[in-house]
Amino acid sequence: MADVAESERRILVAVDEGEESMHALSWCLKNVVSQNSKDTLILLYAKPPRAVYTALDGTGRREDPSGYLFSSDILAAMEKYGAEVAACVIEKAKKMCKDLQQDVKVETRVENGDPRDVICQMAEQLGADVLVMGSHGYGLIKRAFLGSVSNHCAQNVKCPVLIVKKPKTNAFSK
Amino acid sequence: MADVAESERRILVAVDEGEESMHALSWCLKNVVSQNSKDTLILLYAKPPRAVYTALDGTGRREDPSGYLFSSDILAAMEKYGAEVAACVIEKAKKMCKDLQQDVKVETRVENGDPRDVICQMAEQLGADVLVMGSHGYGLIKRAFLGSVSNHCAQNVKCPVLIVKKPKTNAFSK
Repeated sequence: MADVAESERRILVAVDEGEESMHALSWCLKNVVSQNSKDTLILLYAKPPRAVYTALDGTGRREDPSGYLFSSDILAAMEKYGAEVAACVIEKAKKMCKDLQQDVKVETRVENGDPRDVICQMAEQLGADVLVMGSHGYGLIKRAFLGSVSNHCAQNVKCPVLIVKKPKTNAFSK
Repeated sequence: MADVAESERRILVAVDEGEESMHALSWCLKNVVSQNSKDTLILLYAKPPRAVYTALDGTGRREDPSGYLFSSDILAAMEKYGAEVAACVIEKAKKMCKDLQQDVKVETRVENGDPRDVICQMAEQLGADVLVMGSHGYGLIKRAFLGSVSNHCAQNVKCPVLIVKKPKTNAFSK
């Protein structure tokens, strides 16, 4: 993989609704993707398990992950919510790609499942040359369900992994 | 940091005697460093605590990390050994930079201490725009002493961290 010419790389970027993943995408577009290259950027959004939507709702109450406690209306509403979030995140990411690297080829994937598993599986399945992601992602509540996604991926993905944190201060800016 | 122009980046690469860190450096030179850029590559070797040299010797026997059990001759020999390893690693890394990216500016640093602490401190002190390292490093025996260096750095370094694994197979090659 290290020998893949820069102009042929498949760069997998895991995006979510958090600002940090958009910062990671931005950093990647500015620092990894080459001008006028044939790099392909693959934007991946993992639609987390149902239990996570409920956490995302911010109620913080414990739910049966099977959704057993929910009426079909609520389940349908949660599915719709999840789909809308996915579409919104992908749209935002695609716009950023166009704004920062007009020429880069962009593919998008929305997959269902625990982001930790989805990202690792997709990195392998898509033959990614590098995986780019934020260090946190999925917010405090979702992390309580999912654990640290980036730690898991850094340990389990075979290709190089670039973890980009959103600076809280300008200490590192020049 | 994400806004630092590509041509001004300070790229910190943690190198050690393991093949994986050289693979990470090679991948960085091919995929991150830009041709004819003003990137500065900073090669950092952390000279680990004395107890680690003894482990590195492969004896595997438990030692007093303070070196209490060693004669001054042995201590001097171990220090000399450590300095020689550092010089060898840095030389090898500098040659790889010259071979793969003739124009890139290269600085070298050899610091004493636990690589986990040294790398995190240097990333901040040197104002690194990105930290590049192998995923394991320091070999099985040293890891037993040091734990996973890359996990620690990915969690504690503020700048983006690129973790490059040495592929065991060609599964990901194209």
